[in-house]
Amino acid sequence: MPGEFDLIARHFTRPARRAVLGVGDDCALLVPAPGMQLAVSCDMLVEGRHFLATVAPERLGHKALAVNLSDLAACGAEPLVYTLALALPRADEAFLAGFAQGLHALADAQGIELVGGDTTAGPLNICITVIGQVPSGQALLRSGARAGDEIWVSGQLGDARLALEVFRGRVALPGAEFEAVRRAMEQPQPRVALGRSLRGIASSAIDLSDGLVGDLGHVLQRSGIGARIDVDALPRSTVLVAQPAALQHECLLAGGDDYELLFTAPAARHADVLQAARHAGVAVTRCGAIEAAAGLRIVDAQGRPVPQRFRGFDHFAA
Amino acid sequence: MPGEFDLIARHFTRPARRAVLGVGDDCALLVPAPGMQLAVSCDMLVEGRHFLATVAPERLGHKALAVNLSDLAACGAEPLVYTLALALPRADEAFLAGFAQGLHALADAQGIELVGGDTTAGPLNICITVIGQVPSGQALLRSGARAGDEIWVSGQLGDARLALEVFRGRVALPGAEFEAVRRAMEQPQPRVALGRSLRGIASSAIDLSDGLVGDLGHVLQRSGIGARIDVDALPRSTVLVAQPAALQHECLLAGGDDYELLFTAPAARHADVLQAARHAGVAVTRCGAIEAAAGLRIVDAQGRPVPQRFRGFDHFAA
Repeated sequence: MPGEFDLIARHFTRPARRAVLGVGDDCALLVPAPGMQLAVSCDMLVEGRHFLATVAPERLGHKALAVNLSDLAACGAEPLVYTLALALPRADEAFLAGFAQGLHALADAQGIELVGGDTTAGPLNICITVIGQVPSGQALLRSGARAGDEIWVSGQLGDARLALEVFRGRVALPGAEFEAVRRAMEQPQPRVALGRSLRGIASSAIDLSDGLVGDLGHVLQRSGIGARIDVDALPRSTVLVAQPAALQHECLLAGGDDYELLFTAPAARHADVLQAARHAGVAVTRCGAIEAAAGLRIVDAQGRPVPQRFRGFDHFAA
Repeated sequence: MPGEFDLIARHFTRPARRAVLGVGDDCALLVPAPGMQLAVSCDMLVEGRHFLATVAPERLGHKALAVNLSDLAACGAEPLVYTLALALPRADEAFLAGFAQGLHALADAQGIELVGGDTTAGPLNICITVIGQVPSGQALLRSGARAGDEIWVSGQLGDARLALEVFRGRVALPGAEFEAVRRAMEQPQPRVALGRSLRGIASSAIDLSDGLVGDLGHVLQRSGIGARIDVDALPRSTVLVAQPAALQHECLLAGGDDYELLFTAPAARHADVLQAARHAGVAVTRCGAIEAAAGLRIVDAQGRPVPQRFRGFDHFAA
């Protein structure tokens, strides 16, 4: 069984391109570009909370980096480098090879690199910190939404939650449909290009990790305003749309693990939003509006209130 | 029981001073100073591997940050900000309050701040990523040691390992002596000021986290040279010096968890090293020399070889 240093070297050491100095010293060294602010975010993934034991290592490697890149996307930042800390129950070569493959594939697709980290024995735990850059003053924040802004979401919502309900035994799906929603859960696509395209257009943004109601709640709180969401306008897959309305609403509004962007923009920038989305190659859908009155109102296409008891996903709730 | 967001807000949200934007958005935002390189490092701490269940939460908070700052110290970098990801078996208010107190006390002493992170349920795991800065080209690296350089260490070595042997039941110590070595294990002092003072003087540096033999081995490997260490010259406490020679050697050479700096400097800079150490308020001791011949030779004060079978601490070794 190879030791810690061998394992790190074999699977995670690659030539530094963006960093002055990459893996292998006490610290990595980076040279920030002039006029840029650094954007930093950190996410920890724990088995049973953020992924299931059944996930393929390649997909887990992808997801661990994707959920971090999603935070940079929500700020409109360009990803640069990341660190990885990994606790593993044992030095499992096959797991590490697959994990590293999924991780590096996404990193390469985004043009970013691993610059440091740590590996230790312990219950499986994956902690990634990403560092990106954004032109000074142009970061998309949660605090910029204003009354009258349109509310948009990228991609489709709810499939990851639907897949979770299949794993929980609450929902049954045919094989191909299950595989489609399972992929949404296990291989989310961080909307980095969209986030960058929305700089100067969106007034606020957040990534949907804990469910729309909870995440939009953060925007409303930090922006000091309220909102109306048209649940019938929320974009969903053909798999989800075949489910009962109550389950659809649960998956769309309180699903979690979507890793799509929710953002706001002035109504006057509607065409600019659509152009930015085309440029990024991502579908976006208008699904509501920011309102001056505090609180979140969920309505249907006819404007009737939709009863909802959803709140943000709390990692310590029972 | 308060929820995740309440817990984070209560214990970890503090006003941003160094960051443009701190905790509470998708990313933190920093403005790097002109002419500086960023230094980034990441360490993960797992119960039973990096700390014992008996540690006070205050000391654990201190140690989790200290071991990361020690990496910045070894690069001669000035710490700026850090992220914290925390997996907790349950939302334990008393633990969090103590942990945050120890963490913030060290952060305040170093003038740095928490800019982001993540909290989740899971087996106890602490992952911190630190970001610092160093003038371009002045970082202390592992690769700069040259034949003829003197080898130095800061502080005293081996007490943390001696404390571990007490916990393991292999060594018995009177209460006051145990408390002294236990403090070395649980509250290491990162040598940040010393690292910065050594810029332009030291030819290489590393922090001693896995034991002198293993960590010096990284320097020798990356610098492509060998070394001689005088084990009798290694600085040790009055507690350790009272132990049998074999145990002393084990603690000094393969102890781990010292978090002192090991560094090299040209013999011509001997006086400059001593002045830098005085300036930083840290004792340093010359304990060997870099030699052209590959390999590490451990000798006593009379130059006789000391048998040793130590290697670096491997987190996956049995």
